[in-house]
Amino acid sequence: MAFVHPARVQFFEVDLQGVVFNMWYLAWFDNAMTAFLADLGFPYDAMKDLGWDVQLVHTEVDWRGGATFGDELGVEVSTDRIGTTSFTLAFRVLRGGDVLVEAKTVYVVVGFDGSGKRPVPDDLRKALTASG
Amino acid sequence: MAFVHPARVQFFEVDLQGVVFNMWYLAWFDNAMTAFLADLGFPYDAMKDLGWDVQLVHTEVDWRGGATFGDELGVEVSTDRIGTTSFTLAFRVLRGGDVLVEAKTVYVVVGFDGSGKRPVPDDLRKALTASG
Amino acid sequence: MAFVHPARVQFFEVDLQGVVFNMWYLAWFDNAMTAFLADLGFPYDAMKDLGWDVQLVHTEVDWRGGATFGDELGVEVSTDRIGTTSFTLAFRVLRGGDVLVEAKTVYVVVGFDGSGKRPVPDDLRKALTASG
Amino acid sequence: MAFVHPARVQFFEVDLQGVVFNMWYLAWFDNAMTAFLADLGFPYDAMKDLGWDVQLVHTEVDWRGGATFGDELGVEVSTDRIGTTSFTLAFRVLRGGDVLVEAKTVYVVVGFDGSGKRPVPDDLRKALTASG
Repeated sequence: MAFVHPARVQFFEVDLQGVVFNMWYLAWFDNAMTAFLADLGFPYDAMKDLGWDVQLVHTEVDWRGGATFGDELGVEVSTDRIGTTSFTLAFRVLRGGDVLVEAKTVYVVVGFDGSGKRPVPDDLRKALTASG
Repeated sequence: MAFVHPARVQFFEVDLQGVVFNMWYLAWFDNAMTAFLADLGFPYDAMKDLGWDVQLVHTEVDWRGGATFGDELGVEVSTDRIGTTSFTLAFRVLRGGDVLVEAKTVYVVVGFDGSGKRPVPDDLRKALTASG
Repeated sequence: MAFVHPARVQFFEVDLQGVVFNMWYLAWFDNAMTAFLADLGFPYDAMKDLGWDVQLVHTEVDWRGGATFGDELGVEVSTDRIGTTSFTLAFRVLRGGDVLVEAKTVYVVVGFDGSGKRPVPDDLRKALTASG
Repeated sequence: MAFVHPARVQFFEVDLQGVVFNMWYLAWFDNAMTAFLADLGFPYDAMKDLGWDVQLVHTEVDWRGGATFGDELGVEVSTDRIGTTSFTLAFRVLRGGDVLVEAKTVYVVVGFDGSGKRPVPDDLRKALTASG
């Protein structure tokens, strides 16, 4: 079953065109990614101890509709692909039964100590695979 | 010659990883797009009179490096493609001679009155073509 | 009993000093104000019909501590003062039993149609008084 | 002569009421403060070496008018008061000859190493006094 993280549109996120300004979707994806990883057993607090973190290297977003003030949305997250040192998450922003926005975001796994790229850890790989 | 719009990294744009949080690049692209269209003869103030506006429907971004506090950046804008009702701009975020980020963003032309999609106006098409 | 609206610190809200950048508290106060007015019977959706809206004219904020990533906060809202055309809300940002931030914010009531200041409507005055 | 830092209103800063959402003024004050301190000889890059940084502990803001998209503003900064471990800056947001917003912001000086409050360094005190 898909993981869904809630998002409620805030007043200041809506621009002069009456819809949520595009950049705020990236904030929601980040929130949803953090919640998704925590749900898989990797809360942000644990990452220092685990020794790794993730960095965004690519995102692509398609807007089919615009959310507006007061909308109660769901941000669905699923694993799209797992590579050697990176993984891709797929997002869908849902308002009721409508898909407003679809996105894919690629993260590389990096050492928490700034040591750069490293292979996707086995336990993360297993958890992402099981969630896919 | 390429159009370049300046961006100076602000303190609050830098996150716990020490680099600019991803969403702020979309703010810079929007600023650069607005300046680019104004430079082509279509300032935002004129759009109400012209009867059209643009809406973002797709963006894709590749990060090669991260900007940090105090960086003086240039956001280069060029026309990538012109379709029937949409056009694509290409962006490069430059720090000195380095390309930190590359992006493409698709805009549809819409009526300013909310009447929906419309063909790319001839004068905009000519200006975009000349700038490409 | 005090009205408390939840706020969860987002990754991008935390700055290079490791705490939430000051401006985001104003976003939280706005969210909490909206929820507070909705709770009193004045949801934002209704304001167009009611014919009035509120505009921020003054804010003052005291920080005693800083929130950081992942903190689950409560933003407490109460009525501080009701004037002729304005009212003041008091906010406290709570983390567990600690008060991190205190603030007061003054709103004037304005016509939804841009007609400017107007007296605080009777039903709003009653609701604010009862909540004080 | 007063120090003035430019601010250009960005599209996404304007909310459904057609004016800049309140929190963005705090972003501008932060930018203006950073530029003001740099102008006095204390650029952010130097602070690690100097051993101190500043933390916001209080702000108060009065809005007389609202800025909107495309406005070219000036944020005037001056020293209002210098205490033992803190100093107060006064800000005025100017549009042409109009004062849109006035604010005061109190900063405490803290050790860059997280060692907490410390007296305002002599060279900073002199520079702030001379600028007052």
